[in-house]
Amino acid sequence: MPIYEKHDYPLVDVRRYLEPGPVVLLSSAHNGETDIMTMGWHMMMEFTPALVGCIISPANHSHELVRASGECVINVPTLELANQMVDIGNSTGTRIDKFKEFGLTPQKGTVVSAPMIGECFASFECKLANGKMIDEMGFFVWKVIKAHVDKTVTAPKTLHYRGGGEFMVAGDSLDLSARFKPEML
Amino acid sequence: MPIYEKHDYPLVDVRRYLEPGPVVLLSSAHNGETDIMTMGWHMMMEFTPALVGCIISPANHSHELVRASGECVINVPTLELANQMVDIGNSTGTRIDKFKEFGLTPQKGTVVSAPMIGECFASFECKLANGKMIDEMGFFVWKVIKAHVDKTVTAPKTLHYRGGGEFMVAGDSLDLSARFKPEML
Repeated sequence: MPIYEKHDYPLVDVRRYLEPGPVVLLSSAHNGETDIMTMGWHMMMEFTPALVGCIISPANHSHELVRASGECVINVPTLELANQMVDIGNSTGTRIDKFKEFGLTPQKGTVVSAPMIGECFASFECKLANGKMIDEMGFFVWKVIKAHVDKTVTAPKTLHYRGGGEFMVAGDSLDLSARFKPEML
Repeated sequence: MPIYEKHDYPLVDVRRYLEPGPVVLLSSAHNGETDIMTMGWHMMMEFTPALVGCIISPANHSHELVRASGECVINVPTLELANQMVDIGNSTGTRIDKFKEFGLTPQKGTVVSAPMIGECFASFECKLANGKMIDEMGFFVWKVIKAHVDKTVTAPKTLHYRGGGEFMVAGDSLDLSARFKPEML
């Protein structure tokens, strides 16, 4: 499986990879322990700063790590990682090393201690921006503070979960920019 | 453009149409006025009740209507509505009748006063569930109280926004259900 060559990417453009709604892999670390979680419930909340909201249930072992560290990395996987995405989602809360278990390569981030996933073409280092609704709903608001993207991946074959074990794979691109008011682009 | 024949749909399965991350059309009504807004920033937050979070900025005229009424309908459009989606996104805050202006058919819902959009294959009637982060972030949490879906649409060609006027069109379906632990389905 390829390890992507990621480079610094503008924070204001993070939405390009998250707004389409792909399943992502959230990596975390605390006290020398790491975890990876498969996550479908997330959304953009602001351009600048780049805010991302997501649900991380206390039933997920990652909840403990991101809460204690106030940090995570949101990694965007593509079709070639489909099996690992499912297998990670199947493996709950145990103290296995998921990088080793699922053959993924940890990469050191520049700001947070949670590792990026080498096999993902985009990784976003995040710090907790707002935790007011964690207790009530497991809802975390993250601020992306460093973005890493392999820009040679122009139309990523991301996976989008439909429930029941069925995914939608990202299809054709449709450029409607000519129809937009310039200030809306 | 077809008007879909929608029928009652189980609330617990609403996620099947929202979790993949499509751009949606949010319709609202208050005091005899209606509005439609193109929305890309939303996410599932809970299965039961079916909770959906979204950002509706005060800059959107819809903000006023959904806030005053505590209601909305989330409609899921497909490829044939691509131009209307962009045009609705381009038209800001004015008091035009967007149903007339963009050739869309209002359908009476069963619970809320906001109209459903006939040209969308799925419409979810919502009531406000949690408004604690409206002031701070424009973040609304909706509870879907009635779902209407044309179930003959099995692999909807939804549109997923990449920014810069570019959309990803929903592609192939990938069934990995055999790989899931039964309790994860």
